[in-house]
Amino acid sequence: MKFLLFTFVGVVHLFSLNSGKAIYKNDISQRTFQEVKEEIAHYGDVAKAIINLAVYGIARNRSYERLALLVDTVGPRPSGSKSLEKAIQIMYQNLQEDGLENVHLEPVKIPHWERGEESAVMLEPRIHKIAILGLGSSIGTPPEGITAEVLVVTSFEELQRRAPEARGKIVVYNQPYVNYSKTVQYRVQGAVEAAKVGALASLIRSVASFSIYSPHTGIQEYQDGVPKIPTACITVEDAEMMSRMASRGNRIVIQLKMGAKNYPDVDSFNTVAEIIGSKYPEQVVLVSGHLDSWDVGQGAMDDGGGAFISWEALSLIKDLGLRPKRTLRLVLWTAEEQGGIGGFQYYQLHKANISNYSLVMESDQGTFLPSGLQFTGSEKARAIMEEVMSLLQPVNITQVFRAGEGTDINFWIQAGVPGASLLDDLYKYFSFHHSHGDTMTVMDPKQMNVAAAVWAVVSYVIADMEEMLPRS
Amino acid sequence: MKFLLFTFVGVVHLFSLNSGKAIYKNDISQRTFQEVKEEIAHYGDVAKAIINLAVYGIARNRSYERLALLVDTVGPRPSGSKSLEKAIQIMYQNLQEDGLENVHLEPVKIPHWERGEESAVMLEPRIHKIAILGLGSSIGTPPEGITAEVLVVTSFEELQRRAPEARGKIVVYNQPYVNYSKTVQYRVQGAVEAAKVGALASLIRSVASFSIYSPHTGIQEYQDGVPKIPTACITVEDAEMMSRMASRGNRIVIQLKMGAKNYPDVDSFNTVAEIIGSKYPEQVVLVSGHLDSWDVGQGAMDDGGGAFISWEALSLIKDLGLRPKRTLRLVLWTAEEQGGIGGFQYYQLHKANISNYSLVMESDQGTFLPSGLQFTGSEKARAIMEEVMSLLQPVNITQVFRAGEGTDINFWIQAGVPGASLLDDLYKYFSFHHSHGDTMTVMDPKQMNVAAAVWAVVSYVIADMEEMLPRS
Repeated sequence: MKFLLFTFVGVVHLFSLNSGKAIYKNDISQRTFQEVKEEIAHYGDVAKAIINLAVYGIARNRSYERLALLVDTVGPRPSGSKSLEKAIQIMYQNLQEDGLENVHLEPVKIPHWERGEESAVMLEPRIHKIAILGLGSSIGTPPEGITAEVLVVTSFEELQRRAPEARGKIVVYNQPYVNYSKTVQYRVQGAVEAAKVGALASLIRSVASFSIYSPHTGIQEYQDGVPKIPTACITVEDAEMMSRMASRGNRIVIQLKMGAKNYPDVDSFNTVAEIIGSKYPEQVVLVSGHLDSWDVGQGAMDDGGGAFISWEALSLIKDLGLRPKRTLRLVLWTAEEQGGIGGFQYYQLHKANISNYSLVMESDQGTFLPSGLQFTGSEKARAIMEEVMSLLQPVNITQVFRAGEGTDINFWIQAGVPGASLLDDLYKYFSFHHSHGDTMTVMDPKQMNVAAAVWAVVSYVIADMEEMLPRS
Repeated sequence: MKFLLFTFVGVVHLFSLNSGKAIYKNDISQRTFQEVKEEIAHYGDVAKAIINLAVYGIARNRSYERLALLVDTVGPRPSGSKSLEKAIQIMYQNLQEDGLENVHLEPVKIPHWERGEESAVMLEPRIHKIAILGLGSSIGTPPEGITAEVLVVTSFEELQRRAPEARGKIVVYNQPYVNYSKTVQYRVQGAVEAAKVGALASLIRSVASFSIYSPHTGIQEYQDGVPKIPTACITVEDAEMMSRMASRGNRIVIQLKMGAKNYPDVDSFNTVAEIIGSKYPEQVVLVSGHLDSWDVGQGAMDDGGGAFISWEALSLIKDLGLRPKRTLRLVLWTAEEQGGIGGFQYYQLHKANISNYSLVMESDQGTFLPSGLQFTGSEKARAIMEEVMSLLQPVNITQVFRAGEGTDINFWIQAGVPGASLLDDLYKYFSFHHSHGDTMTVMDPKQMNVAAAVWAVVSYVIADMEEMLPRS
């Protein structure tokens, strides 16, 4: 995932099921909530069959094995790379071979940035090789690098206060990690804010919950009218060390070399497959994850896991011979990491059909053992989601949280379509996020089985219910 | 720490205090256990004073601040390096300025190995830059590197079984992490075992409890009569990936380049300081940690923390105006990581005086929040240690475990001198051990305060009691 708002994460359904019922009952709907509840209860056996197949049956560990094969074969899949396009072609073939329907690719123009060779060396107060990862979209340095004194700050406020000191320096941000959505602002805007006060480059403490000297990359954004300066992330360890050095009055000098370059946009695709609805084929429940990743590690967690449990959801439903009334559409987004480029293109192409989208789902915060479902939608829809999640009692994942989201589905959610995502262990997620450590080693086949079961039950039941999810 | 036996780690005093008492009572000692117990109880106020000074008083966070200053200034301190010698000179000055007594350096010849430039690239089945850290004492490759097919094994047994396949290959060990003392055998002997079956090089899965794509170095040992081949550690992630690739039948080819070189031994020193005993100055309680580290990270945890709480123990006792009956001797070992070179030299120099050593202590397994004291000694001595540890009730660290040890003090322990170490969170310790992640970020000032308090109370009371600790 790129950068998202978790404002409501952890706020457990503020409105109880009862209030949900009440709202539902007062609605114009012809059916009482009791009737809807009974309809959902009838899916108990289907839910058990999905769970059994995913967790104990022949599909056990399948999403993990499929994912391992892909990411071991093609490696990381950054926007604009040959490996991303190879992954898309492989997935196109995989989805066809899996017997899914209407498998096709939808063209998207995506950014092409490459980090090239990069290095940073502290020259004073002592020689020390600094681990860096250039930030996505950053320009490079001149070939001889930028050698400059360092100004360490812990916040944008401190930078403003010390603005006269920043000119001609490399600004090092040692902002504490509060949470991802708050702290990521330093990665996204750090270069712009440093450039505004005359800095030559900026180095950002990695936005990470935990570190073993691991730099974590990600997108950054330049601003019109503000000089573009090179920017990279450094480790928590080095940011803290430079902060200590500065507080002792040490003069710190760094030589930064970055071969980063932005190339013209390239052709890419969102990858789509379906199980076509039996009764309302024009109506859609969308399940998704993104196929692109950063250029380090394997992109196994971000977002291989989300993409592959989404595929697995359709596989499980198909394997059980189920066909929901509405169309179940799998989308594997391209260039999510550059700001939901594939997701935006898809929205532009399909938004005319928005009234036919019952639910949009994206998994992009880990596929470990989910705590439950994050959901954005009306209180009536929430009451229904709570009933649906109660079908997942056999795997003990029944909670419905606030703030369903995902970079690629937020376009739909903001336009009023109910949206769902998985709430997972964010401390673990942001330990590996956008780092060399995002590999299959982080993934657990048993946990993926359970995440896929949740994903399949929710998407199937919502796609098969007699009515679409009610909107606000 | 280098490699040690934790066989008894976690076995909580099998013999109860009662059996200790019984043994003690039946001894030839003139004093009953009750008398000794009463003597120890009298140290309650002293223990509280030490704890108050270390944890709440003006010495609060001192060991952390002192350590940060040293390791930020000199960086990592590998055997044979200028930075180790610089650290020794700084510590010599620090200990004098601290007002400790008999501050001196004891010469030791130590190994000088440098890793030089090193890299590994997977050429097949896909291009992938592999993070490595050459292992201490390894030879380098020819300048053009070694390019060879890989044989992945998960154990020495599998290597034996598949010996005919190993000739001319690079052996990759993907042994699971069981615990440090068991698993480290792959790092220490991996090259020798691979060379015996004709391999050209060996790459060892890092011996680590947790990984964010972090290689963990350490010493390895060649054997007379077995060809020397280059050897390095790789990450858990890459070892697992190659294991999966091999199991799919992929041919894996790696190009390994290592500029590692062994140079002639250099002059170094154990750094010694004392608080000279008031009544039995010739008798010694030794507290220690090692000043050398590996050449990555800062050596803050291994073993900056152990060295600095040892110094802190003497500082605290001195600051309180205490002078024990016996001499408290601080030793900061050199070249522990090469197999206790400094420790062995010290033992050779001082072993004639062995009957005067009441207790040897080394902290080299973390200075986070200790679970208690590890102790090796007679049951009578253990009963005394349990009484002493009860003085640490105010910080709730009172347990006495088995198997006190330390690379540098094991020479004494094996010769019958009681030995003590701190039992700490080994999962955390081996997450960072010998990696780029061994920095001040791992350390916590509050935890170091408590560890120093434990260290000071134990060393002071044992040094001040009327009798030496009884031996077996």
